[in-house]
Amino acid sequence: MSIRIDTDRLMARIFELGKIGGLPNGGCKRLALSEEDKAGRALVTGWFQALGLEVHSDVIGNTWAIRPNKFGNTERPVVMGSHIDTVGTGGLYDGNLGVLAGLEVIESLIDAGVETERPVAVAFFTNEEGARFQPDMMGSGVAQGELDLAEMLASVGIDGMSVSEALDAIDARGDEPVGALTPSAYVELHIEQGPVLEVEDLDIGVVTGVQGISWSEFTISGQACHAGTTPMAMRHDAGVVAVGIALEARAIAQEFGTPQVATVGRMHFAPDLVNVVPEEARLTVDLRNTYEEVLKKAEARLFAKAQALAEAEGCTIRRQSLARFEPVAFDPDLVESVAQGAAELGFKSRRMPSGAGHDAQMFAPHCPSAMIFVPSKEGISHNINEYTAPDQIAKGVALLAKVVLAQAGPEQTLPGTQQPAIAQGATS
Amino acid sequence: MSIRIDTDRLMARIFELGKIGGLPNGGCKRLALSEEDKAGRALVTGWFQALGLEVHSDVIGNTWAIRPNKFGNTERPVVMGSHIDTVGTGGLYDGNLGVLAGLEVIESLIDAGVETERPVAVAFFTNEEGARFQPDMMGSGVAQGELDLAEMLASVGIDGMSVSEALDAIDARGDEPVGALTPSAYVELHIEQGPVLEVEDLDIGVVTGVQGISWSEFTISGQACHAGTTPMAMRHDAGVVAVGIALEARAIAQEFGTPQVATVGRMHFAPDLVNVVPEEARLTVDLRNTYEEVLKKAEARLFAKAQALAEAEGCTIRRQSLARFEPVAFDPDLVESVAQGAAELGFKSRRMPSGAGHDAQMFAPHCPSAMIFVPSKEGISHNINEYTAPDQIAKGVALLAKVVLAQAGPEQTLPGTQQPAIAQGATS
Repeated sequence: MSIRIDTDRLMARIFELGKIGGLPNGGCKRLALSEEDKAGRALVTGWFQALGLEVHSDVIGNTWAIRPNKFGNTERPVVMGSHIDTVGTGGLYDGNLGVLAGLEVIESLIDAGVETERPVAVAFFTNEEGARFQPDMMGSGVAQGELDLAEMLASVGIDGMSVSEALDAIDARGDEPVGALTPSAYVELHIEQGPVLEVEDLDIGVVTGVQGISWSEFTISGQACHAGTTPMAMRHDAGVVAVGIALEARAIAQEFGTPQVATVGRMHFAPDLVNVVPEEARLTVDLRNTYEEVLKKAEARLFAKAQALAEAEGCTIRRQSLARFEPVAFDPDLVESVAQGAAELGFKSRRMPSGAGHDAQMFAPHCPSAMIFVPSKEGISHNINEYTAPDQIAKGVALLAKVVLAQAGPEQTLPGTQQPAIAQGATS
Repeated sequence: MSIRIDTDRLMARIFELGKIGGLPNGGCKRLALSEEDKAGRALVTGWFQALGLEVHSDVIGNTWAIRPNKFGNTERPVVMGSHIDTVGTGGLYDGNLGVLAGLEVIESLIDAGVETERPVAVAFFTNEEGARFQPDMMGSGVAQGELDLAEMLASVGIDGMSVSEALDAIDARGDEPVGALTPSAYVELHIEQGPVLEVEDLDIGVVTGVQGISWSEFTISGQACHAGTTPMAMRHDAGVVAVGIALEARAIAQEFGTPQVATVGRMHFAPDLVNVVPEEARLTVDLRNTYEEVLKKAEARLFAKAQALAEAEGCTIRRQSLARFEPVAFDPDLVESVAQGAAELGFKSRRMPSGAGHDAQMFAPHCPSAMIFVPSKEGISHNINEYTAPDQIAKGVALLAKVVLAQAGPEQTLPGTQQPAIAQGATS
């Protein structure tokens, strides 16, 4: 018994979906619940239906198709999923790959006549990107009870339309209630969106979890004065404090080591003149770590240093938290299944956290969940130049199929032992 | 023989001139060669003429009035001067004080019937502020041959009009050629525009020279990447380099000590997003020192460190010089005369460099020149809240009169010895 992953078919679907909202120089703009999203949803749902699958949509537009198990049952499926919305200058792979790969796995099972012990499903979730409506990962968050439906429906987008209005505008509001999708396991294939796999020449990232995120904005108030006439000792330079905080963030990342990262992406001085000592400075610090305790230590050190720097300069400082998410750890057994599957398929892999948020983290508290990363060329994502080669995608889909079958097959079918063989490529 | 400085008369003139271009909440906007400047020039020139003084204007609108010496000669006068243009949100004292104090000294001499060995003049120079036309100190620079007349006339202002057009628009172009004003000495009374005198509770700043100025803009190019998915070791963070340069500037000022100052007034990151490592960063560094050799050392250290920081981060960097002026040293004898005069008048003074540029520095290479500073409240200047109290101004004008008389009087009239006594205040 073997299933045949048809990479050509998958790639053709990726390109066809990418044309909807396609940008003049490549890439794609298909914002959540936009007219383009409506067309994308219709295309993908049409593919679901063409396989004769039962298709469901819930009250926030999450949509899934279930292939029943060998007893005709659709309860507690093994779910593959991701999203088909994009950012304003998105690529063809972010999200779309996970959905269309799930479709490809199911179609391969159907083609091969392989029946499973558990039902298998593929899903796309509304507004994962957060590019139109805040917060991101909205649909999966609502589906799993992590976000409140009423609040999310009321969220107003960048164009002034609410999620609720946008759902109706494109007729995407479904009948299924919150909690209708109850996976026995959740597996998401995604592009890495970072440079590690390419730099280390690896095929697969075995994703162990999602980094915790701490975003702070610091606003420092000092005193504007003349850059020539004011001695250094009489200054209250808000810019110097901001700069010191930024260097502390870098120092924390260096001293803590991997997986701690720290980024200062925004820095503003006022009045923003060459010869005036800044009266006010604002900066953001993005801290991430896989371990909540370490992330807390990083925060504590940064915040204390910020306060000390401000005091030393005779400035006042305030901090606003822009975002704070605890790290998410994926299911150890399912992560192990991904790692073992990659090894059995001869793929070079490493364990790594996800530095970005994904729908999978909304499922992690509720069912065994995991993710598979494939390389991103030059680490580029959220960009029209986002690219993952077809042979890299083929490996990711093969591993996805293997991991899903390990979950959906008979209990004794351990990965790489009693499972159906999985062939890659259109011709194998 | 005594002269009586009428501080009330001087203050009344300061307030009357300040009404021209007066701003709703105080302060003044009287940009160079604007309609407001035209009215200000007319007011001040009228005061000159009311004293029966010979008034001259040159080809770039510099205007001066000469009181002949006791032999009726007007050649090589002792010149008091400054400017009457302001920045967009200027105060009432910057520049105006030096001009109107000069007028007050001459009127006091006339009132007292004091004749001088040398002629005495008061002058205002076109576009000292550089707020409308670049560069600043334009009129005095042209007058002394430090700046080229044709180039300056062609300079286009922030509103698209050239200096030449603006001169004609307000009928300020005079007949006198470049070089017509040939002072035997130049003395400028000015507000400090910094906090030192107030903080140290002093009456007078004996200005030893003008700091050299070095303005650089650094542009660092790195690589934008995701703040979550990109390990620290794979980053080329333009912001981190910019921040390092800013801290080096502060370190240079601290380690070199007074009179070295260093200011980072502008800092910009692109793409300016919380979760994207900056692809580009720009910052300005303003370095100033009284000693050219030390300023060069500060520059060399900063530029080398900037290069090293960029290389360490795998970024490229380029530097553009926005301005570079060598320090100006005022005439030691004239500076000594200011210091001695202050002591004889019982004023608390200190020697200090000027951190800002002034018309006096254009005269320094051509005739003995010096400046007298009076305190600025909280060091504030170029601001509608700029303030110097009348009693502080009175002391400055008394000292100005004393120093000018030392230059203009008979050679044997040394400061504080054979000079006419100088009384302060309206009633003394």
